[in-house]
Amino acid sequence: MSGQHLAEAALSGGDRSVVAVVAVVALAALAVGYVLLREVLAAGQGTAKMQDIAKAVQEGAAAYLKRQRNTLTIFGVLVFLLLFALPADTVSERIGRSIFFLAGAVFSFAIGYLGMWLSTQANLRVAAAANDEGGREKATRIAFRTGGVVGMATVGLGLFGAALVVLVYAGEAPKVLEGFGFGAALIAMFMRVGGGIFTKAADVGADLVGKVEQGIPEDDPRNAATIADNVGDNVGDCAGMAADLFESYAVTLVAALILGSAAFGTQGLLFPLIVPAIGVITAVIGVFITKARPGENGLSAINRSFYISALISLVLCTVAAFTFLPTSFAGLEGAKNAALTGNPGLIAAVAVIIGIVLAGIILWLTGYYTGTEHKPVKHVGETSETGAATVILSGISVGFESAVYTAIVIGGAVYGAFLLSGDVTVALFAIALAGCGLLTTVGVIVAMDTFGPVSDNAQGIAEMSGDVSEEGAKILTELDAVGNTTKAITKGIAIATAVLAATALFGSYSEAIRDAGNTAVDFAANIVSPNTLVGVLIGAAVVFMFSGLAVNAVSRAAGAVVYEVRRQFHDNPGIMDGSVRPEYGRVVDICTRDSLRELMTPGLLAVFAPIAVGFGLGVEALAGYLGGAIATGTLMAVFLANSGGAWDNAKKLVEDGNHGGKGSDAHEATVIGDTVGDPFKDTAGPAINPLIKVMNLVSVLIAPAIVTFIIDGDTALRIVIALVAVAIVAAAVIVSKRRGSAIADSPAEQVNSA
Amino acid sequence: MSGQHLAEAALSGGDRSVVAVVAVVALAALAVGYVLLREVLAAGQGTAKMQDIAKAVQEGAAAYLKRQRNTLTIFGVLVFLLLFALPADTVSERIGRSIFFLAGAVFSFAIGYLGMWLSTQANLRVAAAANDEGGREKATRIAFRTGGVVGMATVGLGLFGAALVVLVYAGEAPKVLEGFGFGAALIAMFMRVGGGIFTKAADVGADLVGKVEQGIPEDDPRNAATIADNVGDNVGDCAGMAADLFESYAVTLVAALILGSAAFGTQGLLFPLIVPAIGVITAVIGVFITKARPGENGLSAINRSFYISALISLVLCTVAAFTFLPTSFAGLEGAKNAALTGNPGLIAAVAVIIGIVLAGIILWLTGYYTGTEHKPVKHVGETSETGAATVILSGISVGFESAVYTAIVIGGAVYGAFLLSGDVTVALFAIALAGCGLLTTVGVIVAMDTFGPVSDNAQGIAEMSGDVSEEGAKILTELDAVGNTTKAITKGIAIATAVLAATALFGSYSEAIRDAGNTAVDFAANIVSPNTLVGVLIGAAVVFMFSGLAVNAVSRAAGAVVYEVRRQFHDNPGIMDGSVRPEYGRVVDICTRDSLRELMTPGLLAVFAPIAVGFGLGVEALAGYLGGAIATGTLMAVFLANSGGAWDNAKKLVEDGNHGGKGSDAHEATVIGDTVGDPFKDTAGPAINPLIKVMNLVSVLIAPAIVTFIIDGDTALRIVIALVAVAIVAAAVIVSKRRGSAIADSPAEQVNSA
Repeated sequence: MSGQHLAEAALSGGDRSVVAVVAVVALAALAVGYVLLREVLAAGQGTAKMQDIAKAVQEGAAAYLKRQRNTLTIFGVLVFLLLFALPADTVSERIGRSIFFLAGAVFSFAIGYLGMWLSTQANLRVAAAANDEGGREKATRIAFRTGGVVGMATVGLGLFGAALVVLVYAGEAPKVLEGFGFGAALIAMFMRVGGGIFTKAADVGADLVGKVEQGIPEDDPRNAATIADNVGDNVGDCAGMAADLFESYAVTLVAALILGSAAFGTQGLLFPLIVPAIGVITAVIGVFITKARPGENGLSAINRSFYISALISLVLCTVAAFTFLPTSFAGLEGAKNAALTGNPGLIAAVAVIIGIVLAGIILWLTGYYTGTEHKPVKHVGETSETGAATVILSGISVGFESAVYTAIVIGGAVYGAFLLSGDVTVALFAIALAGCGLLTTVGVIVAMDTFGPVSDNAQGIAEMSGDVSEEGAKILTELDAVGNTTKAITKGIAIATAVLAATALFGSYSEAIRDAGNTAVDFAANIVSPNTLVGVLIGAAVVFMFSGLAVNAVSRAAGAVVYEVRRQFHDNPGIMDGSVRPEYGRVVDICTRDSLRELMTPGLLAVFAPIAVGFGLGVEALAGYLGGAIATGTLMAVFLANSGGAWDNAKKLVEDGNHGGKGSDAHEATVIGDTVGDPFKDTAGPAINPLIKVMNLVSVLIAPAIVTFIIDGDTALRIVIALVAVAIVAAAVIVSKRRGSAIADSPAEQVNSA
Repeated sequence: MSGQHLAEAALSGGDRSVVAVVAVVALAALAVGYVLLREVLAAGQGTAKMQDIAKAVQEGAAAYLKRQRNTLTIFGVLVFLLLFALPADTVSERIGRSIFFLAGAVFSFAIGYLGMWLSTQANLRVAAAANDEGGREKATRIAFRTGGVVGMATVGLGLFGAALVVLVYAGEAPKVLEGFGFGAALIAMFMRVGGGIFTKAADVGADLVGKVEQGIPEDDPRNAATIADNVGDNVGDCAGMAADLFESYAVTLVAALILGSAAFGTQGLLFPLIVPAIGVITAVIGVFITKARPGENGLSAINRSFYISALISLVLCTVAAFTFLPTSFAGLEGAKNAALTGNPGLIAAVAVIIGIVLAGIILWLTGYYTGTEHKPVKHVGETSETGAATVILSGISVGFESAVYTAIVIGGAVYGAFLLSGDVTVALFAIALAGCGLLTTVGVIVAMDTFGPVSDNAQGIAEMSGDVSEEGAKILTELDAVGNTTKAITKGIAIATAVLAATALFGSYSEAIRDAGNTAVDFAANIVSPNTLVGVLIGAAVVFMFSGLAVNAVSRAAGAVVYEVRRQFHDNPGIMDGSVRPEYGRVVDICTRDSLRELMTPGLLAVFAPIAVGFGLGVEALAGYLGGAIATGTLMAVFLANSGGAWDNAKKLVEDGNHGGKGSDAHEATVIGDTVGDPFKDTAGPAINPLIKVMNLVSVLIAPAIVTFIIDGDTALRIVIALVAVAIVAAAVIVSKRRGSAIADSPAEQVNSA
């Protein structure tokens, strides 16, 4: 799986043309995205007032991403240098790994930037379209086409990057790809966390002062936090999500390519590129066939096109597997395991099918647990009649339950792929191929997800401008509810890619340890051994810690927003009667500053915790650590996403006139549930997916260094490195805690005196 | 570690007298308990009205436990037969294991019953004492002495049972002890779950109708659920907790004894009995020196006596280790590892010290995170000013954070003990000895814990009777707040014993597999292998599922209570004006019926999930499963316990006049937090400790059967067993879901028409 295995698997001319075709398909995806982009931009832009508001949102979002880019550049350069210092087999591998780390990071950021920019263009156009005749179809179409652009860019850039690495590096591709995946995952994690803190600080802050204290509706222009709230939707839900899914795409592909040549020889390096290339084609079909039939719910239309495109993927991938791959291992070019029995074509086909079916089941399961028309959300809505406490408890139960079933389904997929071969390398490759199967749906998934924040923002612009008809507003509310469910689905799919990629990357981890140790004995991190078990415990703990830090960061930043909005209401009584325009920019600045400051602690935790465990407790404990983080991370991510989604939609149910409707006690109870769910579903939950991948890739990258230290007996230096890592994390936690108290103390006092 | 190793380690005459002395110490503990009991019962019983109320509580609690005993008897007999069917080395081992399973089960139930009975006697006396002059000291003394009785009974019976097994079975003790521990853990789990559902259904139900809907205070006699609420404190917090700590005691001792002779020869079988015998002596000291100084907080007094007795334990255990154990492995009688280097006395001393220090750190950490005088709870209190949502979020953050630190401390203790020897068996024994060190504090811990529900009930009796002076009521409120923290501490200690015992039992698990397989190769469940990793994922999922089921069960049962109380208010308007006495008995009956019905699903999950994983996916996946359950279980248990404790005490802070005091919006926000925390801290959280042990012991018991099936190639039968286990769990989940909807539907309709 590592360099020395692959070095022999140089690409023949025919192989190179296969990769070249894949690269062309990837570029074609970008071209399709451009066509869709033109269509979106050509749509009507509504009234001048709507354009004014949209402009403010655009400027705020651009300013945030610019500052985030500066912060991340410093961090990226540091990691680039650290990466350069880590052991590698050859110099070109060392250089390639660092260069492609930067490529992954830049691509990830670019996709995020595109998602954000486009979404700020589209929200205005969706709001305007809802006002027109045939508004529902028009608005749905623009929102979904917007998603299509981002989806095409995600799969196009991801596939193009991977194909490029394979073309250029062939034999050394795996180590270089580790860099590419790491860059993508690291930046995506920061964008997820930073954007998540921004969006929820603004949202929660706006709600606490607006809805709860002043009793003014959501998105009311008198609330100084409304622009920030809308900016947040774009930098969190669009930029963060797009970067995250790009990262999922890249890392899964990386895992498959690393394992491919070891398991299947040269064809193993090509087949994982062919599967997502098919996915690109079906994603194009999926985006173009999405049309809501008259009177049909937007979610049904989206689901239909998902299932159709998944089915097409399934058929084409099966055909590809049987035509491209031989029926015996002896027939594979350059295969290490020519003596194995079994049918490579069949194994690959079944593995890919497992991945596609997994995507379908998660779609259904998440829709069931977070959709307004199914039992769970209805039940949460019912519990609003006995108050906020029962809403919280029922939402937590829904989250726990859905997490369990999702985890079992993902576990079943991993186990099913694992059973496809008795050979460990082939089994791991099958798991990675299941991940590639899942990837074929990413284009449509991104399109679905982008739908959510675009609709949410369109609603915001409609409300703030007051220029959208009642009918138009109703359409936008419907689209927003659909968006809540599609957002939860994306998170489910993303976490599934994390498990599949991470499981497959374990193969790369073991191989790195074996290579560095030069031993014939297989590396074994026996979970019944106390050091591995302690690793599992710490890995699980880091997921809790990360989630707690993210939730806390939102609370702190929201506190600062609350304070600022209160201050504006207090200092300018004219704001309340509408005669004075609030200073929106100040709240945007606060959110920008706080979210960039707050993302450092969880970010440092993700990078340095595996370093501390690996150097301090050894490679067995680090393996346990990753296992614990994957298992607990999966459950926590789904729990946070789905309980948040259920609360949000339970609130929508009440607002649609159930259980007393808007303004009732039941409504207040669901608003509390929704506020609790906000940082769950949009900050902590979605960031766990890139977290797992970052920790996995850090571990794969540092494993050879740890083994070298252990073999050389450099215990003192090893422990020093671990202690430095612990000190960095501890210092970050202490700094953010201090900040917490300072903020918590000041506003309370000042408000009391106000 | 298993029978064949131990068979040679028959006890000499001198050894037998050591064990006999330990048994006498255990009996002496029971005698001290009796003396304390006499003192408690001799205290004044207050007014006739108070006695009336206490009597109703006593009857309700006794009725519940009687019905629970009947339910558990059926379950116990079934498991007894299943256990008898499992493979064993000899017939006497098979019989002994089943017989001592019953002994463990009966002891566990008996301790629970005693805890409950005594607590219902003591609450009245504490309430009466608070009314007297010097009330604070008197009330504190009675409450703490009551705990002392239960503490003495716990350590006395646990130690006596283990000593008896060693005396009678010597060589075959380990397998028999597995039965003893399993019986204790299984019954404790049912009592924890059943009692936890009862107490919180009544508490939440009473609060929802009383405080929230009708605006009457807690424990108001017009609320039909008040008696049930007080009964619940006794069957949940007293009976459940006492059985749980007895089980922790028994299983930790079992783990140490199983590993002892393999690691240290005969002395290894004796030393784990000597350590808790020392614990008995120091517990007696701890109970007798607990006296609040004038004006001192009850918690300070309890903490002081804990630290003093822990220090005495530490000194005595160190002395015992160095005098009883030799300075080299060659000096150990019958040691398998005579060739090992290292000092057994030093290893044992350090291991025990690690355990005692661990108890001290957890005490401090939990006190910090849940005590009213420290930052975290104060912070949760502050967030009440911005509403219920921020209270929930800050409480969840406190829970996450404290879980992380507690898990890291426990992991550190495990790793520290593990480092004491390079030999795996000795290292595992050191971990078990750390567990024994922790055990030396159990006597005082139980006394601390019982303090909580007794004070809570005393407050209830005072409120309902109206016969306690204002000063007396204030004293009882203070004691109740102390009780919230001590209850959280107990849960922290209990989960630490679970991790230590489970880690040590992994040794027994591997040994069972090796024995059954007759192979020379070490069993390895490599976490980087997908089947083990899937096991970890499922193990983590079961903890989420169990927690979700427990929370759901409380919601459902509370719904039934709400409905009944509403019905009584509606049908008898006289209840509200105080002219008609509500039918307390009906609510007690509902809680009894529902909690016994609801405990079946989580109970079946705990027993059958490991069977499904083990038979279905093999012993590696089962090892992963246990690892995942231990890691996630530890974090979840501490999270649930501490967030619940923090919310409860934040409410107390507000009720003490902070942030607006009783009746303010801030108060309402903290009441919501407390209601969410109720099933967290008193139902789901504490049940995770016995859950982990039950799953561990089931796995140890079934491991030989799984290996035999695999070796014999009986794949079909193996899969059938797994499917039957899955079907049982699925059926139980579906039945409880159906019940859920039926209950949820009926009251809502009837209430709307009412």
